[in-house]
Amino acid sequence: MFESAELGHKIDKATYDKEEPKLREALLNAQFDLAQKAKFPVIILIGGVDGAGKGETVNLLNEWMDPRHIQVHATGEMSDEERDRPPMWRFWRALPPKGKIGVFFGSWYTEPIVQRVLKKSSAASLALDIEQINRMEKMLTDEGAVVLKFWFHLSKDAQKKRLKALEKDPKTRWRVTKFDWERFELYDKFRKVSEHTLRETSTAEAPWIVVEGSDARYRGLTVGKMILESLRKHLATQSKATVAKAPPLQAAIDGIDVLDKLDMTQVIAKKKFDTELEKYQGKLALLTRNPKFKKIAVVAVFEGSDAGGKGGAIRRITGALDARHYRITPVAAPTEEERAQPYLWRFWRNVPRIGRFTIFDRSWYGRVLVERVEKFCSEADWMRAYGEINDFEEQLTNNGAVVVKFWLAITKEEQLRRFKEREKIGFKRFKITEEDWRNREKWDDYERAVCDMVDRTSTEIAPWTLVEANDKNFARIKILKTLCDRIESALKKVK
Amino acid sequence: MFESAELGHKIDKATYDKEEPKLREALLNAQFDLAQKAKFPVIILIGGVDGAGKGETVNLLNEWMDPRHIQVHATGEMSDEERDRPPMWRFWRALPPKGKIGVFFGSWYTEPIVQRVLKKSSAASLALDIEQINRMEKMLTDEGAVVLKFWFHLSKDAQKKRLKALEKDPKTRWRVTKFDWERFELYDKFRKVSEHTLRETSTAEAPWIVVEGSDARYRGLTVGKMILESLRKHLATQSKATVAKAPPLQAAIDGIDVLDKLDMTQVIAKKKFDTELEKYQGKLALLTRNPKFKKIAVVAVFEGSDAGGKGGAIRRITGALDARHYRITPVAAPTEEERAQPYLWRFWRNVPRIGRFTIFDRSWYGRVLVERVEKFCSEADWMRAYGEINDFEEQLTNNGAVVVKFWLAITKEEQLRRFKEREKIGFKRFKITEEDWRNREKWDDYERAVCDMVDRTSTEIAPWTLVEANDKNFARIKILKTLCDRIESALKKVK
Repeated sequence: MFESAELGHKIDKATYDKEEPKLREALLNAQFDLAQKAKFPVIILIGGVDGAGKGETVNLLNEWMDPRHIQVHATGEMSDEERDRPPMWRFWRALPPKGKIGVFFGSWYTEPIVQRVLKKSSAASLALDIEQINRMEKMLTDEGAVVLKFWFHLSKDAQKKRLKALEKDPKTRWRVTKFDWERFELYDKFRKVSEHTLRETSTAEAPWIVVEGSDARYRGLTVGKMILESLRKHLATQSKATVAKAPPLQAAIDGIDVLDKLDMTQVIAKKKFDTELEKYQGKLALLTRNPKFKKIAVVAVFEGSDAGGKGGAIRRITGALDARHYRITPVAAPTEEERAQPYLWRFWRNVPRIGRFTIFDRSWYGRVLVERVEKFCSEADWMRAYGEINDFEEQLTNNGAVVVKFWLAITKEEQLRRFKEREKIGFKRFKITEEDWRNREKWDDYERAVCDMVDRTSTEIAPWTLVEANDKNFARIKILKTLCDRIESALKKVK
Repeated sequence: MFESAELGHKIDKATYDKEEPKLREALLNAQFDLAQKAKFPVIILIGGVDGAGKGETVNLLNEWMDPRHIQVHATGEMSDEERDRPPMWRFWRALPPKGKIGVFFGSWYTEPIVQRVLKKSSAASLALDIEQINRMEKMLTDEGAVVLKFWFHLSKDAQKKRLKALEKDPKTRWRVTKFDWERFELYDKFRKVSEHTLRETSTAEAPWIVVEGSDARYRGLTVGKMILESLRKHLATQSKATVAKAPPLQAAIDGIDVLDKLDMTQVIAKKKFDTELEKYQGKLALLTRNPKFKKIAVVAVFEGSDAGGKGGAIRRITGALDARHYRITPVAAPTEEERAQPYLWRFWRNVPRIGRFTIFDRSWYGRVLVERVEKFCSEADWMRAYGEINDFEEQLTNNGAVVVKFWLAITKEEQLRRFKEREKIGFKRFKITEEDWRNREKWDDYERAVCDMVDRTSTEIAPWTLVEANDKNFARIKILKTLCDRIESALKKVK
């Protein structure tokens, strides 16, 4: 992969001086169009060999481009807020919105490569990282982002020469540290691991661009032109797939689905309910105060038919929790800042730190429920969402979170009864809107979407619990009990 | 202050059962109006004696209110991202937007009181904290926020009884820890410090509401009704002062201002410029790589006439910096999320951690420049902004930041020359817009605003540097030199 970047590429000063102003003007033009049309973000990753001009290139981009629409993110040491969340969280929080350019100086490649070079991680773990990165980049490009990955390369010889030259000049001496020479010792190993990683992550959507780093003029013009061409191409086409390539989802031919199999007649009588409620709330209180809880987190997701009883069920849970340690995140329409980001961004934004209890009242499943049924997004968008969601939940789980997902199912008749009741009771009036009545008309479409969702996202690590919720008592106890069981088994695994 | 909260207030069950549903409906109604009109946020602070029902009250509010529009923030231990910024940062990041209710369980009062009780801070330092809190709350209410401060009180005797009762019941035993009993030993001291703090912070805009905490029904209804009344009152009036009560700003009667006194003929010739540039960039490079730099931060603010040369000056600075450690924050129009917050929120959002170098290309001074001249805000708003800005910069400074502010001044003739030049050169075309020409027509109004700004915000801790910028070389060197001097003297003070 690096052969072409060891040829000693060079651009002479005269050529550079002629090309640079033109390139700069064209880049500003393209950037201006990008900001105006604001249909997609541009994500530029800067990686490569130390001393190959990564920092200089970032400075050059800052100089050429309009600083109002470009933002550089340098990935240094993680803060504790970052360490307490899945590794990708720090990148999600720094993603550029549509219309802007985000430069990642050091990226999601840095840790996996460095850890492997230093033998702090296994080949298998690198393989998993690579897989995750490919899924992340696939998601970004599917969302319309332009992902440009630059790898600055120097041959071993060239790197040595460059470090020595920098060291000799008093004005640049500070830039070479003992650390750089230690890194240099690892050149061969670094090259091998990088080569492997680049190969495995050079996808059709986001291929690597390897740039020889020894000549500043060559390096600068190469990167500038590549960015320009990408911007132009994407501004010209801007097409996003709207029809999924996958075969359409089909209901089982005998017409039986998971919701049909629920026994909706199950009830718990008042007296038994009171005893059980006390029992499980007490248990939940103790489990969440267990010192080991600091090593896990709970992400409880509530979805369900309108009037399914989510709010009441959530209150039975929070009643057992310390008000300092839980947070309810109600999911409403996205804000302007959220709309300028990939779909999952607004949920990443609210990903809890380890040791916390977070309840999502509606969730990322909106993508495959309301957005699918109401056609707020294209078929291609919601079809790929299943995989993206599974990825997201896997990252939460890998970080120690227990992901518990509840679907509160009621029958169409029970919903009607509750709607009518709500219209009568004062403080419940706000719970029923025109929209609820409209949604009800699409009952069958929603059922269909729910069944597909369960089929595609009920995973071993984050299974769905379908809750028969015609009887509120029954639903609340089932939910509390499920939560307790899941937390209990997670705590057992904590060393 | 606590006498009325030691009378043994009680509400019987029958009364509570009658009142509660009505209160709840009224609260939901008010909350609905708040969300619909979305003209102001509601900030509820919960403080007081341990065991006086703070957590229960927060749970009750969560149960009564629509969870989509209320958010609880519990202030636990600081994260390192919080520790690396001014203490108020963690509260700024959690402020509710307009139309929403934010409950702070533990607030900006917790640390000052606890530190003083534990004798980890002096009376003088508590006095400073109190002053800062009063200014913060003044700013919030000036911005239209409703600030409700509840203090839950228990007499010493009642606290003891309550702790013992909790301890006796196996279901609530977990809630009482050794830590609670240690705190109880400090009751008298705690009472004294709290009493003092409450007295000094019970302002006309945000008075404390002391609630006796022993009876849950009394406590709940009291808080609920107080919130309801406040919401109703503010929804009914919603008036914000638009005319400042202060006397109008007047130019000096002899017509001489700080800008008139600048010698705009100063120049630096090319050759000298090259030497000086190298000298000061080298110096800046070394200063920012000094290990002591990790203990300070630089916040460099660039304001100036249109075409004053901010961008070029900034690039001469960043050229000397490590691309990993600086960030340029260009200030454009606020986003929807930012518009729903107090004016300074979007700058607090970008407050750098300690050890970083942040450049603001335009800044919070927009409030007293463009927003004043173009009448985007009322006179009352920009008049109070001077004080708010001084507060903000003081907090940055107290946290170790060096705040360096540059005004790049050019003459009206020079601006015209540059505008015309920009229209000719391709890659500079984007720097000149219709708006620039329009602003130029208000040249005198802007000059006036600049002089007032310098008079009122050039402080000992964060002085303005007026830069004679008709000659770009002169301006760039003056800026670099000023920056170096300020950083150098800050580093000297680092132990």
